[in-house]
Amino acid sequence: MALKSWLRVPSGSPFSIANLPFGVISTKEQPTGRVAIAIGDFALDLFAFTAAGGFSKSKELQPYSSVFAQPALNGLAAFNIQYQTRQYIQSVLAEDTPHPELLKDNEELQKLVFTHLSQVQCHLPFHIGDYTDFYAGLNHAFNVGVLFRGASNALQPNYTHLPVGYHGRASTVVVSGTPIRRPRGQILTDPTAEPKLPIFSPCKKLDIELELACFVSKPNEMGSPIDIKDAEEHVFGYVLMNDWSARDIQAWEYVPLGPFNSKNFGTTISPWVVLPEALEPFRTSGLQRSDSGQLLPYLTEPRKDNAYDIKLEVELRPSGTDKGKVISRSNSKYLLYSFPQMLTHHTVTGCAMNTGDLLGSGTISGTEADSVGSLLEMTKNGKEPFTIDGVQRAFLEDGDEVILRGTAGQGEDCVGFGDCAGVILPALEN
Amino acid sequence: MALKSWLRVPSGSPFSIANLPFGVISTKEQPTGRVAIAIGDFALDLFAFTAAGGFSKSKELQPYSSVFAQPALNGLAAFNIQYQTRQYIQSVLAEDTPHPELLKDNEELQKLVFTHLSQVQCHLPFHIGDYTDFYAGLNHAFNVGVLFRGASNALQPNYTHLPVGYHGRASTVVVSGTPIRRPRGQILTDPTAEPKLPIFSPCKKLDIELELACFVSKPNEMGSPIDIKDAEEHVFGYVLMNDWSARDIQAWEYVPLGPFNSKNFGTTISPWVVLPEALEPFRTSGLQRSDSGQLLPYLTEPRKDNAYDIKLEVELRPSGTDKGKVISRSNSKYLLYSFPQMLTHHTVTGCAMNTGDLLGSGTISGTEADSVGSLLEMTKNGKEPFTIDGVQRAFLEDGDEVILRGTAGQGEDCVGFGDCAGVILPALEN
Repeated sequence: MALKSWLRVPSGSPFSIANLPFGVISTKEQPTGRVAIAIGDFALDLFAFTAAGGFSKSKELQPYSSVFAQPALNGLAAFNIQYQTRQYIQSVLAEDTPHPELLKDNEELQKLVFTHLSQVQCHLPFHIGDYTDFYAGLNHAFNVGVLFRGASNALQPNYTHLPVGYHGRASTVVVSGTPIRRPRGQILTDPTAEPKLPIFSPCKKLDIELELACFVSKPNEMGSPIDIKDAEEHVFGYVLMNDWSARDIQAWEYVPLGPFNSKNFGTTISPWVVLPEALEPFRTSGLQRSDSGQLLPYLTEPRKDNAYDIKLEVELRPSGTDKGKVISRSNSKYLLYSFPQMLTHHTVTGCAMNTGDLLGSGTISGTEADSVGSLLEMTKNGKEPFTIDGVQRAFLEDGDEVILRGTAGQGEDCVGFGDCAGVILPALEN
Repeated sequence: MALKSWLRVPSGSPFSIANLPFGVISTKEQPTGRVAIAIGDFALDLFAFTAAGGFSKSKELQPYSSVFAQPALNGLAAFNIQYQTRQYIQSVLAEDTPHPELLKDNEELQKLVFTHLSQVQCHLPFHIGDYTDFYAGLNHAFNVGVLFRGASNALQPNYTHLPVGYHGRASTVVVSGTPIRRPRGQILTDPTAEPKLPIFSPCKKLDIELELACFVSKPNEMGSPIDIKDAEEHVFGYVLMNDWSARDIQAWEYVPLGPFNSKNFGTTISPWVVLPEALEPFRTSGLQRSDSGQLLPYLTEPRKDNAYDIKLEVELRPSGTDKGKVISRSNSKYLLYSFPQMLTHHTVTGCAMNTGDLLGSGTISGTEADSVGSLLEMTKNGKEPFTIDGVQRAFLEDGDEVILRGTAGQGEDCVGFGDCAGVILPALEN
């Protein structure tokens, strides 16, 4: 059944020929960012490929070759040619390609367009206009609610009626591998003391949030909401996201207008954007609603399998240790709202989406202690630390590295995201 | 004392020679956006001026003439040449200009570079990367707190320690004159009924927020906070802002992550950006703190006159009436935090600011009923409507127009913003 490539793709590689995600790369020799596709252990430079006439067999794509020279996917997405491009490259890479002369039998061009991923610098895939983070992970919202308000009052009354979300900070969304400096800010060391006097301090409760995120391709005009029937057409593709969070700063600042400094110091995404088409075989139902009849019609989707079965994991490599440990295994299906629902709700008031806008799912937690997407939940707000090879952790320490991974399927049909990684730098001193 | 121009500037014009704000304009004849300065009843087209050699007497500015051809002020701000440009144009326009041959005695060029403001289309002055709205209007925060939580618990404990703010939606910031469509969304008609079942409806409590906002010029790198001593250098200039708000949508959605749909449908700003230099004579103290000793050092400013004495007013023109009425008069000095404090707090965690980022002050209310900056406060959440020429209003109706104005000084030294206006379109029907 599996589509095979003439290029050797290791079994279990996240970048099988069934995937072919888009990214933006540069190399030492070619330091200018340009569009690429990941296949196996290599990046396929689409700028070099088009410059060598690689798109000569596609009349539809030839006029758009300049988009591959851009240091962002915005051009590709604005012309909405990502599907055609992926299909074309898939046919070029297929074992039984109808055009072996293009690349399969052209070793010289292969040397020019393929670079081993270890030699590639990945960049932020899109120029991001606006970034929004939702809170659609029901288990996470419940767990956090229990910690702060108790089980009987854990979820707000609005939670099952709308995808709760907030506007995030686009300027500090960075690509995997970018170090994250521990933020400093206002912290209330004893929340029960009166009067409440915060101190200025490096964050002592630095946390992660395991999320899936989507990039927007097709824009909508201000004043014209995206109908739920059409919402999928506005999704370019998906990445993993780590929404680093300063829990102590958050607890003091967030009432009444929501998280601000506790989130705006950095958000890491994986570099390769996986298209919905590649994830299509892994469609499944999201979390079931106990009150499905109550969802307002504008949010009611035509299909029920509105989630993806993507296995997610969080690896923590404590500072000074040789190797890390997977501390959590979750799944992207643990969402109460789909990305089309988020898009529709976001725009229902007339809010305009632009090509390259980023939407995060919110933290995706399973129901068990070893399937949660944040340390806040895992350690009960730091009260129940865990150990890795004798090293204790409640929240992140300086030098710790966190790597998120996500894969659907297996073997030669594996569709994955690659690493979403970041290491913690110590706070500034003065 | 007053600087005089050889160009006739009507007394009381917001655009005296002491002001000279920057904007982006186009005309029917020249539909491409470019940089201009407002003077009296005219826009001075800086692109046409530089093309005609208008900057020939400034060796410093000549290399930058291409920034005036851009449809945004980002280039001008990135090179940080706004002060030099304004000073140069001020000397060109001054009655005793040292270079009368440039424009004063060149009627042909005058015809080319001056366009009456009534014939000019103003555009959004900056390409806005990120937009943040603060909540620094103490009286507003108190009034809203009283309405929703009672007087004894009106302000949150964090309010006097940090400038509360939230990330807003940059994609729907529009320039004065852009119509605003009444949003639709989820509303809880009876908040006391159980279970809480929202309806989908056009907003019934459409409101305004009277704000001052600043644009960022100099960026800071991610991970490198802006010190309070340096924060003023990062401010390009100021505009008026109307942060349209759907109060009924807000009440249902905003816990726990803050306002989202209730704000993301539109935010209007005035088109001409007033430089801090022009506002320097109007410096004054902001609201006095009862606990000034408790402000953390990172937010403590070197100078006390950290606010501006700008008279603000809100005019409402009810649908179907001939003329409007000023329903509120406030002042930009009613802020507990200055813009430099907002900038420093925003970046204290390492958040990166980019050229063109927009920061709103939050609603600026005085202490009296006729000096508040929102209808929510003015009508006690709709319970106490007012009348204009026999027409009753609690919140905005379709066809209503709201115009914000702001001016400092008077007569021939007046420094103002021009109108920040928007009219309400009816909600979509299907």
